[in-house]
Amino acid sequence: MAQKPSIPKGTRDFSPEEVARRNYIFDKIKTEFKKFGFQPIETPSFENSSTLMGKYGDEGDRLIFKILNSGDFLKKADKNALQEMDSPKLTPSISEKALRYDLTVPFARYVVQHQNEIEFPFKRYQIQPVWRADRPQKGRFREFFQCDADVVGSDSLWQEVEFIQLYDSVFSSLGLDGVTIKINNRKVLSGFAEMIGESDKLIDFTVALDKLDKIGKDGVVKEMREKGISEEAIDKIQPIFGLNGDFAAKIEGLKNILSASEIGKKGIAELEFIQKAIEEMPLKTAKPDLEVTLARGLNYYTGAIFEVAAPENVKMGSIGGGGRYDDLTGIFGLKNMSGIGISFGLDRIYMVLEELDLFPETVTAGTKVLFINFGEKEAFYAMKAVRELRKEGIVAELYPEDTKMGKQMKHADKRNIPYVVLAGDEEMKAQKFTLKHMKSGEQNAIDLRALIEKLK
Amino acid sequence: MAQKPSIPKGTRDFSPEEVARRNYIFDKIKTEFKKFGFQPIETPSFENSSTLMGKYGDEGDRLIFKILNSGDFLKKADKNALQEMDSPKLTPSISEKALRYDLTVPFARYVVQHQNEIEFPFKRYQIQPVWRADRPQKGRFREFFQCDADVVGSDSLWQEVEFIQLYDSVFSSLGLDGVTIKINNRKVLSGFAEMIGESDKLIDFTVALDKLDKIGKDGVVKEMREKGISEEAIDKIQPIFGLNGDFAAKIEGLKNILSASEIGKKGIAELEFIQKAIEEMPLKTAKPDLEVTLARGLNYYTGAIFEVAAPENVKMGSIGGGGRYDDLTGIFGLKNMSGIGISFGLDRIYMVLEELDLFPETVTAGTKVLFINFGEKEAFYAMKAVRELRKEGIVAELYPEDTKMGKQMKHADKRNIPYVVLAGDEEMKAQKFTLKHMKSGEQNAIDLRALIEKLK
Repeated sequence: MAQKPSIPKGTRDFSPEEVARRNYIFDKIKTEFKKFGFQPIETPSFENSSTLMGKYGDEGDRLIFKILNSGDFLKKADKNALQEMDSPKLTPSISEKALRYDLTVPFARYVVQHQNEIEFPFKRYQIQPVWRADRPQKGRFREFFQCDADVVGSDSLWQEVEFIQLYDSVFSSLGLDGVTIKINNRKVLSGFAEMIGESDKLIDFTVALDKLDKIGKDGVVKEMREKGISEEAIDKIQPIFGLNGDFAAKIEGLKNILSASEIGKKGIAELEFIQKAIEEMPLKTAKPDLEVTLARGLNYYTGAIFEVAAPENVKMGSIGGGGRYDDLTGIFGLKNMSGIGISFGLDRIYMVLEELDLFPETVTAGTKVLFINFGEKEAFYAMKAVRELRKEGIVAELYPEDTKMGKQMKHADKRNIPYVVLAGDEEMKAQKFTLKHMKSGEQNAIDLRALIEKLK
Repeated sequence: MAQKPSIPKGTRDFSPEEVARRNYIFDKIKTEFKKFGFQPIETPSFENSSTLMGKYGDEGDRLIFKILNSGDFLKKADKNALQEMDSPKLTPSISEKALRYDLTVPFARYVVQHQNEIEFPFKRYQIQPVWRADRPQKGRFREFFQCDADVVGSDSLWQEVEFIQLYDSVFSSLGLDGVTIKINNRKVLSGFAEMIGESDKLIDFTVALDKLDKIGKDGVVKEMREKGISEEAIDKIQPIFGLNGDFAAKIEGLKNILSASEIGKKGIAELEFIQKAIEEMPLKTAKPDLEVTLARGLNYYTGAIFEVAAPENVKMGSIGGGGRYDDLTGIFGLKNMSGIGISFGLDRIYMVLEELDLFPETVTAGTKVLFINFGEKEAFYAMKAVRELRKEGIVAELYPEDTKMGKQMKHADKRNIPYVVLAGDEEMKAQKFTLKHMKSGEQNAIDLRALIEKLK
């Protein structure tokens, strides 16, 4: 046992400071979720494999962590698969459960399973870990928290408006001012494809368009050509690259481009409603922007598409995203249930807050005062005071052993405890406590009442 | 897809009300943990199998959920085990990771792995789910939260005192008055075994003794006989059954019984310190009791043993337990690190609070006011007010669709939303809002300021 123990790659231990900072973010998000009328649910960490498999594409299926059946699992194993040494074929016969891959599919399952208990529209939030057998790399983990809010059972565009306001409220409350909320609409993308006569190449078209930020206009055009999109079509989309100005101005530009597309005009009408609502009810600190190239998992979204970018001075991918999907629960047999939702990228938000030094110092504050232990008699005297302080909500501790004072002071120092109390014979006689401020070294003998007042 | 989806047996979905009640308990516990100077850590849901296997006995090894290796796992599979169709033998070659079985072993691993960053004594708390492939039954689940607080690196008996105070503080703050904190000491049990000349049968002896509550004195004696404990020894232990009175009185009784046992006297001295501390600093609502038959996983504990029983009017097993274990981290190569800890049984505490109706009504309170949607113009008017209410921390919503008023009112009713606001043409002209109390039917037209005041 000489080797130090370790944890699986792609997983993390969180120290007290990290847990405190993560909880700070969770708490801010939860507070806003609740204010907007969202209610929390929780689902099991593992689901029946049949619930998860086939919902995320082949790549997703591969990345789902499977749980080995308990007991003599080989008894029910697929004999042919064993003979052929075919791992994927063997898997379903030796593994019936799998770890949650995201929160959306379990939520859809929850809605269908509990449809008779749920009052629709149902606004739920969910903050739980998910697991993916991805190759671990910087900022990508095999276990990480997702943080989602969704509404099911409402087609109203007010939902879109509310989610934009919710993003704004959360990031504002975290002090993360100046995020950009990029907004697009799947119907606008469909309109583009229709207009250029390439509706059958909608996905290739939007995948290429989505890369505008990364590879520039020339790169996008090149990729479109490679995907077999005609020169004529590429000519026709030139105006897309020329859209500029604010949200309202871009909508006007879009109207010209999409004047001949019914679906495109529908998308524009939705964007106009959103734009009008934001204009009449301005956001606190976030900047809304119409980004017609934004696609994000196109096959999934059917209406609004959202993505949040960190403030411009921070280099970081998106810190949130979401959109409307018209058929969330169809995969489990409940049809015509429109959904819309957003998620927050906890790990990236953490990194951004750290980079911008936006975590309040109080977040990681622990013990406020350590009572030095001079022996049993003194310890009893101290513990009685500790008890009174705790009753007042002050985090107080007695050093458990009556070791050398230097060691005890060092302990307070290492733990960043701002105050120590020294109380020996003299103090006990006078019913006082010598309170010492660690940084300044300043100290005063005061009574319990004053001690409480001082530390509160 | 006609069949409704389901979840694996032994797992649970938690509804908004259940999550709120569970979080209420967690928050109360965390608040006290923090007040006592404990800091939170979190560890990954899965550990390397080598970290967990062999730490919980054969039964535990079987109950640990193993994660199937990703990709072509059969490639590295143990060929002999396959040939022999030996599942347990095959497992290590196709599964390298396993789900956390408790929080104690991961904590020990954490302490050893991070020993250079940790300032000892280290007081940590941890509230995370664990997984066990147990046969599900009433009140026993395959996924459940554990809620632990431990200190490592201190032999001081003040830790014992603090944990008793902590139990008292948590249960008092939950309004669960009158729990019994049963206290014992492993050294006392060793003293009994020594005294009756059956030290080699310590485990059989204490396992039998631990059943006194369930099978009575005659049952205990019968089981001891069956385990080969001599008649002479059984005669000698009779005084144990006769111990009564309060904590202090029982200690006096013990002194007579264990006068000839060195280890027993050590245990008594520890109990005396605890008794004295509680006497000088009385608990708020919990009742401490010396229960010399209490054993709880004897092989594990080396000093104090704790168990908490619900108030007498509730039929429920223990709602918490813990104790001192002198060598927590030895399994990972770090010797001489004494630990002591307690845990809270969340699911049982939940059931007790429910049975005694101790959850405050406010815990599950959600949306306070629903604005009825009369159309786009009115909805804009309403949403602006909703925004102002939310700024004041009031949970307010606009019904997203302008459907029939009856349907909207029914929605408010089903969701237990106490107020609705009706604001049509007239109200808009007068810049008012008609606030209606759902239960009484009372309604008034008031301005925004008054609306905020009323709902705050």
